[in-house]
Amino acid sequence: MQQETMIKMVLDAWTVHISRASKLFNELTDEQLSHEASPGRNTGVYLLGHLAAVHDGMLPLLGIGEKLYPQLEEVFIKNPDTSGLAKPATKDLRNYWNEVNKKLADHFSGFTVEEWFQKHSAVPAEDFIKEPHRNKLNLVLNRTTHLASHYGQMLYVK
Amino acid sequence: MQQETMIKMVLDAWTVHISRASKLFNELTDEQLSHEASPGRNTGVYLLGHLAAVHDGMLPLLGIGEKLYPQLEEVFIKNPDTSGLAKPATKDLRNYWNEVNKKLADHFSGFTVEEWFQKHSAVPAEDFIKEPHRNKLNLVLNRTTHLASHYGQMLYVK
Repeated sequence: MQQETMIKMVLDAWTVHISRASKLFNELTDEQLSHEASPGRNTGVYLLGHLAAVHDGMLPLLGIGEKLYPQLEEVFIKNPDTSGLAKPATKDLRNYWNEVNKKLADHFSGFTVEEWFQKHSAVPAEDFIKEPHRNKLNLVLNRTTHLASHYGQMLYVK
Repeated sequence: MQQETMIKMVLDAWTVHISRASKLFNELTDEQLSHEASPGRNTGVYLLGHLAAVHDGMLPLLGIGEKLYPQLEEVFIKNPDTSGLAKPATKDLRNYWNEVNKKLADHFSGFTVEEWFQKHSAVPAEDFIKEPHRNKLNLVLNRTTHLASHYGQMLYVK
């Protein structure tokens, strides 16, 4: 019973932040997204691509499947906005963000209580015995605070 | 067992974000804190005062006690940075931030599993029967994402 309550707490936080960020991305024009959140800082386009890439990386970590858009990692995780690497069209990034989060949501609704408290794929089995908090639900919790942090910055693009 | 795991997950996230934000506040000079995070947006001083005020408000919500600095609410929650209301000295705000979080940490370590899953004081008892996720642990989870969001902005003050 309290396990289900705990899962709801984390998934509610995740869903609220996905909804807020998606609403903000939809409100921002491509032109607005090309602006920096603050002088000399990341552009809205980079933040969008970064969040899509990080959420795409959740698919293998949670055992859902391979990344949908592995090409994003090089541009939006391993390198900074100023790398000079070619970025996908903003229209495509918007689509990637939506598709990745849709796939996550589809699988989240099917996870059992037991699955949520299983280790995610980056945790060695021997570590998980002593560190049971490094489970799939915790990964979603940590990605929620990561999203919240960049959402706060994204508000400044507006 | 899984309840304790869940409590650790949320408190770890809280502690990490408090540490990160405190480290950043310590690195920023009073002069730097007086700057806006982005043109026309909140100053570092306002973000510091806002976070101190919101965390102070957790004391009564979690049944720990009265607010330590109730005067912060008017300046940093009910009104925007540009209100023209007099703000406390930055030195004092730094102190309020540390004191409030210290008091929270002292009590968090003493909460039992049962207490973490009790309702917080803003939830009517009749609602809590149907909405058991509105518990004390969830309040800490929600304040963690709130902190993460403003932490992301605060990075731009640097």
